[in-house]
Amino acid sequence: MARIKPHTLSGFMELLPADEMRMERFLDTLRRSYALYGFTPLDTPVIEAADVLLAKGGGETEKQIYRFMKGDTDLALRFDLTVPLAKYVALHYGELTFPFRRFQIGKVYRGERAQRGRFREFYQADIDVIGDGKLDIMNEAEIPAVIYRTFTALGLERFVIRVNNRKVLNGFFAALDLTDRAGDVMRTIDKLDKIGPDKVEAILTGELGVDPDRARRIMEFISCPGGTEDKLAFLEQYRGRNETFDAGLTELATVVEYLGAFGVPREYFAVDLTIARGLDYYTGTVYETTLTDHPEIGSICSGGRYDNLAAYYTDKTLPGVGIAIGVTRLFYVLQEQGMLSEDVLTAPAEAVVIPMDRECVAAAVRCATALRDAGIRTQVYFEDRKFKQKIAYADKAGIPFSLIIGGNEAAAGVVGLKDMAAGEQETLSPEAAAEKINLALAERRAGRLISG
Amino acid sequence: MARIKPHTLSGFMELLPADEMRMERFLDTLRRSYALYGFTPLDTPVIEAADVLLAKGGGETEKQIYRFMKGDTDLALRFDLTVPLAKYVALHYGELTFPFRRFQIGKVYRGERAQRGRFREFYQADIDVIGDGKLDIMNEAEIPAVIYRTFTALGLERFVIRVNNRKVLNGFFAALDLTDRAGDVMRTIDKLDKIGPDKVEAILTGELGVDPDRARRIMEFISCPGGTEDKLAFLEQYRGRNETFDAGLTELATVVEYLGAFGVPREYFAVDLTIARGLDYYTGTVYETTLTDHPEIGSICSGGRYDNLAAYYTDKTLPGVGIAIGVTRLFYVLQEQGMLSEDVLTAPAEAVVIPMDRECVAAAVRCATALRDAGIRTQVYFEDRKFKQKIAYADKAGIPFSLIIGGNEAAAGVVGLKDMAAGEQETLSPEAAAEKINLALAERRAGRLISG
Repeated sequence: MARIKPHTLSGFMELLPADEMRMERFLDTLRRSYALYGFTPLDTPVIEAADVLLAKGGGETEKQIYRFMKGDTDLALRFDLTVPLAKYVALHYGELTFPFRRFQIGKVYRGERAQRGRFREFYQADIDVIGDGKLDIMNEAEIPAVIYRTFTALGLERFVIRVNNRKVLNGFFAALDLTDRAGDVMRTIDKLDKIGPDKVEAILTGELGVDPDRARRIMEFISCPGGTEDKLAFLEQYRGRNETFDAGLTELATVVEYLGAFGVPREYFAVDLTIARGLDYYTGTVYETTLTDHPEIGSICSGGRYDNLAAYYTDKTLPGVGIAIGVTRLFYVLQEQGMLSEDVLTAPAEAVVIPMDRECVAAAVRCATALRDAGIRTQVYFEDRKFKQKIAYADKAGIPFSLIIGGNEAAAGVVGLKDMAAGEQETLSPEAAAEKINLALAERRAGRLISG
Repeated sequence: MARIKPHTLSGFMELLPADEMRMERFLDTLRRSYALYGFTPLDTPVIEAADVLLAKGGGETEKQIYRFMKGDTDLALRFDLTVPLAKYVALHYGELTFPFRRFQIGKVYRGERAQRGRFREFYQADIDVIGDGKLDIMNEAEIPAVIYRTFTALGLERFVIRVNNRKVLNGFFAALDLTDRAGDVMRTIDKLDKIGPDKVEAILTGELGVDPDRARRIMEFISCPGGTEDKLAFLEQYRGRNETFDAGLTELATVVEYLGAFGVPREYFAVDLTIARGLDYYTGTVYETTLTDHPEIGSICSGGRYDNLAAYYTDKTLPGVGIAIGVTRLFYVLQEQGMLSEDVLTAPAEAVVIPMDRECVAAAVRCATALRDAGIRTQVYFEDRKFKQKIAYADKAGIPFSLIIGGNEAAAGVVGLKDMAAGEQETLSPEAAAEKINLALAERRAGRLISG
């Protein structure tokens, strides 16, 4: 037979079973954490009409899009989960209850140039709160709590949720009479971490034509030292010069004020005046989250407040706030950094029942049924191999418990329970074995995916 | 601004939030049930190289496929989960432990003619056990247990797992010297339920040129009456005429023998000699599952044993057994039949905390944090509306509990817990409220998705 060489496209993640178990744990933790905040799960098609998906048009994204004809229909694969959300809310507006809180975890597609750690198919995990006409600032204050609980549930310990407010920046630039260049200035500031203050100032005074005095004031502003309280105090000095600035500062102070009530420890939070988020889309609070020990990774969870989600589809004003986690890339990076815990159960099963020979198969099956009834993920090793090979299977598959049933055990209605790591074996009833396994695994089942 | 009319492509399911909650419950139940049998979760790309996906080539499927170029690369969207599995096992052969047990739940794509209840993007939920060189018959015996537990966990009560064995059919036809027409004969038999015995016999003696005597013997064979034991006894009469038949009968008897040990009640199981499964691919046990009260729906879970999974990719012999559930279509049908339970929680949250005014917001947030810590899916209603409108939100969103906090409650550190269905309200601490909610919801959380 003519054979095709099997391969997986580059830029597409395909994990081996143990890593896939870790990924499932990752996704499941996100689902649970998002759901805890009353976000409802949503699922939209991967394929949409190209005119719908590209209503906004534009730029870099459009070049990367997977777009094709099927019959007479011009189709495209979604490149993010925000455009499908905008479509969904505009389309089903009358059937939704506002504020509408949804999360969506799904694959999106971007035909980027393939390179290490960049993916063309990747999971994104988004939450958004959409208001009908207006949306209270408290929704922005709640977002850090979701981020904190989510990453903590994953096991991350050293991360910082960085927050800024676009009104503060816009107002500051307006006060400096730089509104016409605010977008360019913000995009430049956004690069501070990457290129350093000197280069930022050089671009401001060079390319952007900001005079040295105002450039110095911008640098002073974004370099403001100290913790959250110091920064708020620093910003208070500017109050009264610009209305937008004042509104933004009040919002920022509100977000800070409620951290404690939301259960976010202060050390996980920072006001960072350099965060602008490239997109012109954001209008209020903006968020970035960085790993304390790996700043080079950049933000692992970003988002912000926007004033109009679905202007391309409806005349309804739909303000919202949302964040997104680029799951596939983050998972890849955590894997590369060795930060995925070795303690998480990654075997296909928690127990494997091994009948010594054909006569013991019925007893083995009954034992497996009892274990499954007790909630234990169980296999039976049915293959006709030597005993040594059967045990070698349990070992190679990394299954933590094996239950061995020979003629004597079958006759007596008991099993030989072997803890594969400890190497110890004891004889007991299937029900007692189930209890023992559940007890022994309780801690590992609850264990966190990420260590450190 | 120029607006695009938002729409979702026909043949693509997009659910409103309450139904999406039901779908999530469906998928989650499948995941848990499959995992309980020691199948490991797998995820493969939606996009594959067209030459890999179409290695087998052929027929109806190829016309339906979504295929397109991106740059110089010829791509296609997966149309099932079996071909990606074959590729995966061939590609990662050296890194897998056999028998390899995997489940995969994911979207697949077929550009079928759009019609009611047919989808172009749909979830399929597959399990397969793949052997390296050989695979014990007991793996085929275990499949009915997985089907039984899965549908029972969903809440289905009246369904039958129908089983046949291709060797029994092949051997029977060989004994009649009809091997050259066995494929056509089986495809005809497969239509028995749809077109009736007279038409089947007419096709056999007409189109297929089977002489009347042998046609009568075929009809007698497939019309064999009685229950499972009667059918096995009936088949025993044929033993000794053909080796393949004898092997198949022994396999079928084995599958029946272990039902009890696997915990499958007899009334959920039937030997059905008319099941051939159209695909030439199957070589041993074949399965179909039908709803007792809705035979018109056809099989809701089908599959069988095959001798070589990945012949197009590798010279390794990889026999296996697997089943698939067409989730999206099944969900649609259950919805249409009114079989989805109304008791399942479908609200975005289980509780909503409502601060009476701005001053109570911090207390409301603290209360919500306490509820979330207790595992309760909780929203806070932050919008500045009249109290009546706030309560109307909880009502409209279908959230079962609201917790009202006014100035007095905030000062005393208590909340007014309102059971929205009962209309009763009582005052207690946030922790006591959490306990009460968890207790009240325990039953509904455990409730089955399908009623009847």
